Amino acid sequence: MPNRIDVGILGSTGVVGQTFISLLDRHPWFRVTWLGASERSAGKSYDSATRWRLPSALPEAVASMTIDQCVPGTAPQLVFSGLDSAVAGDIESEFARAGRTIVSNSKNFRMADDVPLLIPEVNPDHLGLLSVQADSRKWPGRIVTNPNCSTIILALALAPLRDFGLTAATVSTLQAVSGAGYPGVSSLDMVGNVIPFIDGEEDKLETETQKILGTFNTDRVLPHPIAISAQATRVPVVNGHTELVSVKLASKVSLDELKKTFKQFRGQPQEKLLPSAPSQPIMYAVDKFRPTPRLDVDNGDAMAVTIGRLRSCHVLDYKFVVLGHNTVRGAAGAALLNAELMQSEGLLT
Amino acid sequence: MPNRIDVGILGSTGVVGQTFISLLDRHPWFRVTWLGASERSAGKSYDSATRWRLPSALPEAVASMTIDQCVPGTAPQLVFSGLDSAVAGDIESEFARAGRTIVSNSKNFRMADDVPLLIPEVNPDHLGLLSVQADSRKWPGRIVTNPNCSTIILALALAPLRDFGLTAATVSTLQAVSGAGYPGVSSLDMVGNVIPFIDGEEDKLETETQKILGTFNTDRVLPHPIAISAQATRVPVVNGHTELVSVKLASKVSLDELKKTFKQFRGQPQEKLLPSAPSQPIMYAVDKFRPTPRLDVDNGDAMAVTIGRLRSCHVLDYKFVVLGHNTVRGAAGAALLNAELMQSEGLLT
Amino acid sequence: MPNRIDVGILGSTGVVGQTFISLLDRHPWFRVTWLGASERSAGKSYDSATRWRLPSALPEAVASMTIDQCVPGTAPQLVFSGLDSAVAGDIESEFARAGRTIVSNSKNFRMADDVPLLIPEVNPDHLGLLSVQADSRKWPGRIVTNPNCSTIILALALAPLRDFGLTAATVSTLQAVSGAGYPGVSSLDMVGNVIPFIDGEEDKLETETQKILGTFNTDRVLPHPIAISAQATRVPVVNGHTELVSVKLASKVSLDELKKTFKQFRGQPQEKLLPSAPSQPIMYAVDKFRPTPRLDVDNGDAMAVTIGRLRSCHVLDYKFVVLGHNTVRGAAGAALLNAELMQSEGLLT
Amino acid sequence: MPNRIDVGILGSTGVVGQTFISLLDRHPWFRVTWLGASERSAGKSYDSATRWRLPSALPEAVASMTIDQCVPGTAPQLVFSGLDSAVAGDIESEFARAGRTIVSNSKNFRMADDVPLLIPEVNPDHLGLLSVQADSRKWPGRIVTNPNCSTIILALALAPLRDFGLTAATVSTLQAVSGAGYPGVSSLDMVGNVIPFIDGEEDKLETETQKILGTFNTDRVLPHPIAISAQATRVPVVNGHTELVSVKLASKVSLDELKKTFKQFRGQPQEKLLPSAPSQPIMYAVDKFRPTPRLDVDNGDAMAVTIGRLRSCHVLDYKFVVLGHNTVRGAAGAALLNAELMQSEGLLT
Repeated sequence: MPNRIDVGILGSTGVVGQTFISLLDRHPWFRVTWLGASERSAGKSYDSATRWRLPSALPEAVASMTIDQCVPGTAPQLVFSGLDSAVAGDIESEFARAGRTIVSNSKNFRMADDVPLLIPEVNPDHLGLLSVQADSRKWPGRIVTNPNCSTIILALALAPLRDFGLTAATVSTLQAVSGAGYPGVSSLDMVGNVIPFIDGEEDKLETETQKILGTFNTDRVLPHPIAISAQATRVPVVNGHTELVSVKLASKVSLDELKKTFKQFRGQPQEKLLPSAPSQPIMYAVDKFRPTPRLDVDNGDAMAVTIGRLRSCHVLDYKFVVLGHNTVRGAAGAALLNAELMQSEGLLT
Repeated sequence: MPNRIDVGILGSTGVVGQTFISLLDRHPWFRVTWLGASERSAGKSYDSATRWRLPSALPEAVASMTIDQCVPGTAPQLVFSGLDSAVAGDIESEFARAGRTIVSNSKNFRMADDVPLLIPEVNPDHLGLLSVQADSRKWPGRIVTNPNCSTIILALALAPLRDFGLTAATVSTLQAVSGAGYPGVSSLDMVGNVIPFIDGEEDKLETETQKILGTFNTDRVLPHPIAISAQATRVPVVNGHTELVSVKLASKVSLDELKKTFKQFRGQPQEKLLPSAPSQPIMYAVDKFRPTPRLDVDNGDAMAVTIGRLRSCHVLDYKFVVLGHNTVRGAAGAALLNAELMQSEGLLT
Repeated sequence: MPNRIDVGILGSTGVVGQTFISLLDRHPWFRVTWLGASERSAGKSYDSATRWRLPSALPEAVASMTIDQCVPGTAPQLVFSGLDSAVAGDIESEFARAGRTIVSNSKNFRMADDVPLLIPEVNPDHLGLLSVQADSRKWPGRIVTNPNCSTIILALALAPLRDFGLTAATVSTLQAVSGAGYPGVSSLDMVGNVIPFIDGEEDKLETETQKILGTFNTDRVLPHPIAISAQATRVPVVNGHTELVSVKLASKVSLDELKKTFKQFRGQPQEKLLPSAPSQPIMYAVDKFRPTPRLDVDNGDAMAVTIGRLRSCHVLDYKFVVLGHNTVRGAAGAALLNAELMQSEGLLT
Repeated sequence: MPNRIDVGILGSTGVVGQTFISLLDRHPWFRVTWLGASERSAGKSYDSATRWRLPSALPEAVASMTIDQCVPGTAPQLVFSGLDSAVAGDIESEFARAGRTIVSNSKNFRMADDVPLLIPEVNPDHLGLLSVQADSRKWPGRIVTNPNCSTIILALALAPLRDFGLTAATVSTLQAVSGAGYPGVSSLDMVGNVIPFIDGEEDKLETETQKILGTFNTDRVLPHPIAISAQATRVPVVNGHTELVSVKLASKVSLDELKKTFKQFRGQPQEKLLPSAPSQPIMYAVDKFRPTPRLDVDNGDAMAVTIGRLRSCHVLDYKFVVLGHNTVRGAAGAALLNAELMQSEGLLT
């Protein structure tokens, strides 16, 4: 794998940071050459500063790397960010001012008018906001974001429905604990239990989705007019957010046509054969007991979402279940696919 | 406790049957004197035929009772039924033809035009169907039913909203495994997982609720015109169904007024101080992380439902979370409260 | 309940502190009149400073009490301590120097030569160390401790075996998450998982047990010569430590005799009918699938331990399973029973 | 992959049967050409008769195969058996009488004097029993078995200790639910709970291990004289048995030497580079919070066991934790490795 692009990782010791490292191991285009973390870890080797929490082995090349502070200094041109939102705003801005390209999983810039909130299969043209950003921010770098984990899964399921006049959606989420990071949710709250509240999650589902599904028009994104109502819960599942969705469509469409629409949905990542792109972004489960986290979370190497149980809804028009991997498709893998799209469009050079 | 009424239990060895036995221990009005079960158990003492699966101890008086077959023979006048639906229809009919009063948790007669589908706080006047039943069935006995477990919890939450012109509701359920009986759900499907399908559950939520909220009019129940859409899932929780509800109301009403309406909701069980009645059928949780099965399932001795997180909904009008104990308020306790209401109205003599 | 003794609670907002408050509600001898917590909470009302994490309701009288700092000042004579070990040593010492009686669940003084490590059914005579303590510490107060949660359960099971020449025991524990406090164990480590290490736990099981089972001799406790080997794990259970025990006995004894010995075991709490004493400290489960946390953790109002599956061991002599409630019998309830024993012996006046 | 050997699977629709199918997909030496199951499934296509319960996709070539009854008829020469023990004895005998080689995961023949109970890394020479079997059984076929799932994991950990004079071991198991098949354990018993009994498991751990570690001597296996005491429990984990082991050794050995012994342990599968052999059968986890099912169950493609927390034991000599994948290394993968060993020794031709 010659001539791979050097990449850095901000927030490299956290759950999202570790997932970046795992997904970038043996990546054909990128290689990790720089790791940033908090002052507590800076100066230490990665394996001594980090308790590795993924089943896959810590890549040896990364294990011995020395962690840097989260300053641009020696960081490469392309940086993935899995920073906590408490610090992401300042640090990512500093990196952009220092000319870096930040592909961020953090929430801080997602709703900014001049920052793409990108899902490559859904709104690749939103990258057009980067020239707006260059004008408005006056920084030589750029920031691109991916949506919140539960939002990505919802938005992927809703995207192909835009053609049928999507006007409203309700979504109830049953979210996995890995979405809360580490240590995240107390096991005392989670063993044999349901937590009916996740701070900020419902608002993200409702507002980010409108931006993602919106239309890029010269210099701005016009939010999609869809009305969304979300109810978010946490359940004792390790990986995999399950979402129960009802939708209202202006057009008449049959259940079979909808299923076909889901299964045939493709986007630029598939056309361009991006390395992290699933061949089929939306899979459809025939078994009515699926999708289910245990069996379907890793579909498409954890980059596909799986829909099932499509049927009519007595209140809106149709309802279905959609499941996706929250730390891969919903976080680190999403950012990685964003970077791959940018590279394929010549935006990283 | 003198002069208690003798009661029998059909399906006495199952999870619902055991819950009946537990709830009837030391009941001021009723005492268990007869136990019916399948031929496999008939003729054996209860403790030798049953693996007791409740944390509370098996009452000694019941432990030594001999199980009978499910035939009216020596069964007392009042019989609770926790029979499996595969056999409940025939057996309950036989008991009614033999003059018994069956207070049933089984689904078989719930939607029959001449059978009350009763929640004492919600539709006590539906007992008026008993005279219709006497005419139509030509049997000397009577059958009264309680709704499906998840339906009771929903219907209790919706009942006080009828005054505000309730026109539609969506509900997503996160249901406990005890609702599936024993052995019920395989642990291989349930540990760290969500099952997005429960056979028949969504239909029950949608249709039973319309009957429960409906109007008794001389000789029939006119179903409530509410449109309901349900999505039912199973989660790794032992007891306690969590339901995420959105409602559409014709009237304008403030969130505070709605909260007050929930908290002040009372019915005949409260007025008549029925032994199993919770003092407050609907409790409201102020903590936004509640209601949650671990903390709230036993509220009101497991006979109250708990609502929380009431807020506006962008698609319908309001949304909230409601939790209830599925085997007590949602099954055996529901039937018991039905019998208490009937006794208070002189229907058991 | 006239003339109840005023008690204070150190560490009142934590899981153990909350359990103290719950157990002391309606206690016939004691009433909570003072609450201590960290500076962050001091000055606030209890209900505003605390997220209540128990299923039982927060007692109203406590809800409105103002939290004090952990200084003796206005604290009553008798103080229960559920302090974190990081601060318990200093604070408990300060209270003892100020003349208070501290009945502590913290580990700091447990292994001190002059401090009773008390289980009222097992070693009530160890209270004799209090006069040693008065001499050595030169403080007007006194400190009494209860063992670590998993140790109490083990020690109760081993205590009646001393008569048969107990020489060795191995114990493997499967411990509940409530034992780690709040937030305690991350759900990312616990959902569908086993954690094979609990910091310090094995050492406590091995050394505390020797002291507890030891002999009080004029001015010291001679540790019991039993050799103990412990392996401690955490499992996804909310309440209830399960322990797999093998023992070596010098005397020959039949399985029936051992079962009888367990069931007939009684101590001073039973003789004196102490308010929190279970009528039978060790219950025996006949069903070979028990004891199990879901069904047996609350046996004896969560103050009894339950043994089952007694059988021969090919390596030592006998083996069995014992289960107990870790936050009641294993923590707050243990301290409460200690205080009740002290009161019954006139040590609180 | 030309010239692969045709193999059949008895009990192909169960959990073990599905795991065989999954592991044999793309196997370099074997290919599935025949599927046997109960009469209920016979005559149907595999995908219509089976609910596939594994995360990996059902191989397409198998999906469309027609299931046969469990009779030798058209079954190939080599047959893997994942049959339920209720029927395995008769069916496997019939296949052996019909000249087939049965590589069985069932328990029925494991302890027979003339049947190898094989772990290729531990006792490959036990295949010598096959000539004994030919003489005693008078059948043209042959039966080879692998141990019970929890036994394999234990035996792999104990095997390298034989050189140090292994005389006794205690083992406490925390077993995953997949080991009980489907539907197996009721979720009502398993959610947030521990089950302290698994029928027959402790006896298998104690007796099978002695045979496995025993010495093949001309025409028989002399059991290893080790004394073993097992306590088996079920915990809410999907895959991965955790075992807490203490051992008594006649020789003095340092902890470092033991660790090295574990890590350097190799056997014929490694020397011969058998396709399913892990490069290192026993891995050692440095992190004291490991091995843990979530992170370590798939080590060595789920064919390695992982040991951790090696330390001294106050009652025996040393203790440690060992974890392995119960349905791969402990069942289907074990049988597959057995067949690979037999093929490498020319026993399948």
